[in-house]
Amino acid sequence: MTRALYVGRFQPFHKGHLETLKWILERCDEVIIGVGSAQYSHQLDNLFTAGERIEMIRRVLMSEGLTDRCLIIPIPDIGQHSLWVSVVRQFCPRFDVVYTNEPLTRRLFLEAGFKVEGIPRFNREFYDATRIRRLMAEGGDWESYVPSPAASFIKEIGGVERIKDLLRSDKVP
Amino acid sequence: MTRALYVGRFQPFHKGHLETLKWILERCDEVIIGVGSAQYSHQLDNLFTAGERIEMIRRVLMSEGLTDRCLIIPIPDIGQHSLWVSVVRQFCPRFDVVYTNEPLTRRLFLEAGFKVEGIPRFNREFYDATRIRRLMAEGGDWESYVPSPAASFIKEIGGVERIKDLLRSDKVP
Amino acid sequence: MTRALYVGRFQPFHKGHLETLKWILERCDEVIIGVGSAQYSHQLDNLFTAGERIEMIRRVLMSEGLTDRCLIIPIPDIGQHSLWVSVVRQFCPRFDVVYTNEPLTRRLFLEAGFKVEGIPRFNREFYDATRIRRLMAEGGDWESYVPSPAASFIKEIGGVERIKDLLRSDKVP
Amino acid sequence: MTRALYVGRFQPFHKGHLETLKWILERCDEVIIGVGSAQYSHQLDNLFTAGERIEMIRRVLMSEGLTDRCLIIPIPDIGQHSLWVSVVRQFCPRFDVVYTNEPLTRRLFLEAGFKVEGIPRFNREFYDATRIRRLMAEGGDWESYVPSPAASFIKEIGGVERIKDLLRSDKVP
Amino acid sequence: MTRALYVGRFQPFHKGHLETLKWILERCDEVIIGVGSAQYSHQLDNLFTAGERIEMIRRVLMSEGLTDRCLIIPIPDIGQHSLWVSVVRQFCPRFDVVYTNEPLTRRLFLEAGFKVEGIPRFNREFYDATRIRRLMAEGGDWESYVPSPAASFIKEIGGVERIKDLLRSDKVP
Amino acid sequence: MTRALYVGRFQPFHKGHLETLKWILERCDEVIIGVGSAQYSHQLDNLFTAGERIEMIRRVLMSEGLTDRCLIIPIPDIGQHSLWVSVVRQFCPRFDVVYTNEPLTRRLFLEAGFKVEGIPRFNREFYDATRIRRLMAEGGDWESYVPSPAASFIKEIGGVERIKDLLRSDKVP
Repeated sequence: MTRALYVGRFQPFHKGHLETLKWILERCDEVIIGVGSAQYSHQLDNLFTAGERIEMIRRVLMSEGLTDRCLIIPIPDIGQHSLWVSVVRQFCPRFDVVYTNEPLTRRLFLEAGFKVEGIPRFNREFYDATRIRRLMAEGGDWESYVPSPAASFIKEIGGVERIKDLLRSDKVP
Repeated sequence: MTRALYVGRFQPFHKGHLETLKWILERCDEVIIGVGSAQYSHQLDNLFTAGERIEMIRRVLMSEGLTDRCLIIPIPDIGQHSLWVSVVRQFCPRFDVVYTNEPLTRRLFLEAGFKVEGIPRFNREFYDATRIRRLMAEGGDWESYVPSPAASFIKEIGGVERIKDLLRSDKVP
Repeated sequence: MTRALYVGRFQPFHKGHLETLKWILERCDEVIIGVGSAQYSHQLDNLFTAGERIEMIRRVLMSEGLTDRCLIIPIPDIGQHSLWVSVVRQFCPRFDVVYTNEPLTRRLFLEAGFKVEGIPRFNREFYDATRIRRLMAEGGDWESYVPSPAASFIKEIGGVERIKDLLRSDKVP
Repeated sequence: MTRALYVGRFQPFHKGHLETLKWILERCDEVIIGVGSAQYSHQLDNLFTAGERIEMIRRVLMSEGLTDRCLIIPIPDIGQHSLWVSVVRQFCPRFDVVYTNEPLTRRLFLEAGFKVEGIPRFNREFYDATRIRRLMAEGGDWESYVPSPAASFIKEIGGVERIKDLLRSDKVP
Repeated sequence: MTRALYVGRFQPFHKGHLETLKWILERCDEVIIGVGSAQYSHQLDNLFTAGERIEMIRRVLMSEGLTDRCLIIPIPDIGQHSLWVSVVRQFCPRFDVVYTNEPLTRRLFLEAGFKVEGIPRFNREFYDATRIRRLMAEGGDWESYVPSPAASFIKEIGGVERIKDLLRSDKVP
Repeated sequence: MTRALYVGRFQPFHKGHLETLKWILERCDEVIIGVGSAQYSHQLDNLFTAGERIEMIRRVLMSEGLTDRCLIIPIPDIGQHSLWVSVVRQFCPRFDVVYTNEPLTRRLFLEAGFKVEGIPRFNREFYDATRIRRLMAEGGDWESYVPSPAASFIKEIGGVERIKDLLRSDKVP
């Protein structure tokens, strides 16, 4: 059995993430979805709590019938790049391969002796979390870029109001 | 839908935990299994990493056909009791009720306004993680107290050798 | 008896803060003045230590005869918004209402079930801590915006020289 | 004007603390009451939150007419003795002398260049916080050792029930 | 015997650092080379680990015959300026004088009662770590600015590739 | 060239440590002396600061003519065993082999893929840091067990008085 690691912040989990996940599941038996920067929320770049992101992803996985082959694991950010791979290993079950295009993530796992694979670009400019959050803040059509169960969940918890409050805050960098 | 929280350190996940989990699943639709003190391992009281505990629990859930209704979430220990409920809420999806007999856990969740329910004592003296770890250290019959997929996993990763090394260490309190 | 919470960084405590405080004291019996980001100092945005800010505020309260009805409490910043209200509650005596216009502060206390009230805008552009610090750095007339006992204290501890040193430093973001 | 520092954990604030405080106030103009280990609570040795201890002390000071000359400041414990004096200085206004009998506290402040004075032993065995907490846990006459406003406050917030819960907890060292 | 402290991040250790070090060694018997922000690496501003920087400096010292009179000590950054001098004192042997031109470093050591001396400007614009890192990233002639044993070491560990990866990363501020 | 890692807390550096160091230097070209739990001091088990331990070791190395082949590096304790090897690698230059008899240290480095060698027992019961600290506290003949330059240094900084103060302290576990 092959188990892959796929890490991201998933702020929010969008259609590009889902396409990537399906593409990895064609190549591996199981995928650990590592929800990074897990301790942060209520920031412009880290909008949702880890728990909210887990719920958002889980609802999408259920509607796609993918729960059995995926583990969703929150991973705190320790703030020191040289320790990060060890933190991931502490929080996650064993994995055989890491799928990422992120150059630093790739480098840190390679330096630690892991097998690392790239991911095809599924319309990366199109499905971009920063752009989706900006659409949320500006009242644009963010919902087209997010799987429908995730979009419903975001509306349910008042995610759009949250980002608007953050934009008006002095305390948010 | 009702979702319960069931937290523990699961060092290791034993038959008493499994009985409790089944009992909760008779009362709720879903259970979050919160794996506490997630950042610790390689200590006499915190033998396994969070990742190892998640894998151990997942194998048991799969053999019991319970994966669909359970979420396994690692929760770091922040070392300040008054912040602990907030940490749990940051890392876990929404939950409606907490099942626990632990007096401090009960008190902290009640003070935070949660519904808390007790758990029947399923042979607590019998299925006790401290006692099971001692049996592992002393070469006793620890396997009888642990669901068989968890026992296999512990042997697979050399858990018994690990606890023996820890017992001979100066660095372990 | 009604006790209010009024949090800020008070870098420095200016005339707008004093007006706000008096306005709250017309509505409540006691006010907790929460001195936020308490562990930081010697930064452009966090110029004074918590101890210096407490002394600065206390001198103003004494000259106004307000010490009896105010508690000044330093509150460290834990860096995780979802834990912040719990930190405030750990460090402060019980309070009944929070006075704030800050959208994130308002949201976090509302989500935690607190009563939150807005504050009238007392010349906010005029009495703005960032602007006052810039005046200090540029040799402008910062003293007009700060209650006189606070201004004397700032001069006594060499606050103006401190900000000038920070501006010339490589180590200050 | 002379300002003294008097630090303790005040778990709880007892009659010995009050006698000491009055004795210091005969020698100094103002006293900073530093509430140590401020981030801890819900532990056998750190029963009350900093906020609760501040309220407890404030009620005693009010009934004694001492609020004007005292500042109550929570001080977090950073876990590294060589940094502790710097933390105290960060959180507290300037002070001229430290009153303590605690050998490590005395040593750390002397090494940092502070003036340190001893305190007469006001029935130390009699007024001992550990002994008072034990009386609380065992249903003994703890109230005789605690100033009456502090005792009322402890009962008001269910302090006795809290310590009993902690004693029955697995999670409390 | 006089021992000096010379702190920097040394990202990388360049010819200006070496000139400064020699100049200090003409005035003191021994120098502690404090390697600051020791826990950080794999960032654009903190490229190398503390261990890599120690090795880089040690190789230069060996080729210059200076090892006997220098101690290289990593110093973690605690993130609170008011504690920083205490951290330096915890990690370093006793020192008599601090050599620095950095205004905040100078201020913090002066406030703590240390003797602080300035350093002549050895072509500061020329030998500037930020500029050297930019040359590394852009394929420019960075090697001219770095002592030859340090340059060899940087190439040996793939330092140029590392900074290029970091520049293409989303995760690097 | 072969470089070894030899880690310990060196509270204090005793004759057994020196014998071990010489034995390792017969087998390797250079040794990194890793000074563990570097951030702690003024505790019964962590008596001296990292800086004091570095100075103590350096004086012994100088009197033995060993400075050239040794690097003394302080290593903070991060409190999570699964991250510890990564912390060591962050703070230390590259090393090829680890010399240790400590079972947990051995296990953690082996799990991380390092070569680990055992050390002959040089009168371990005899040269034991805990026993030496007890002799210091009780006025016994601790000096026989410590290389003479280390013993002089300990007396110079008042190490014996420090441990006696700690023994009389409430704040020391």
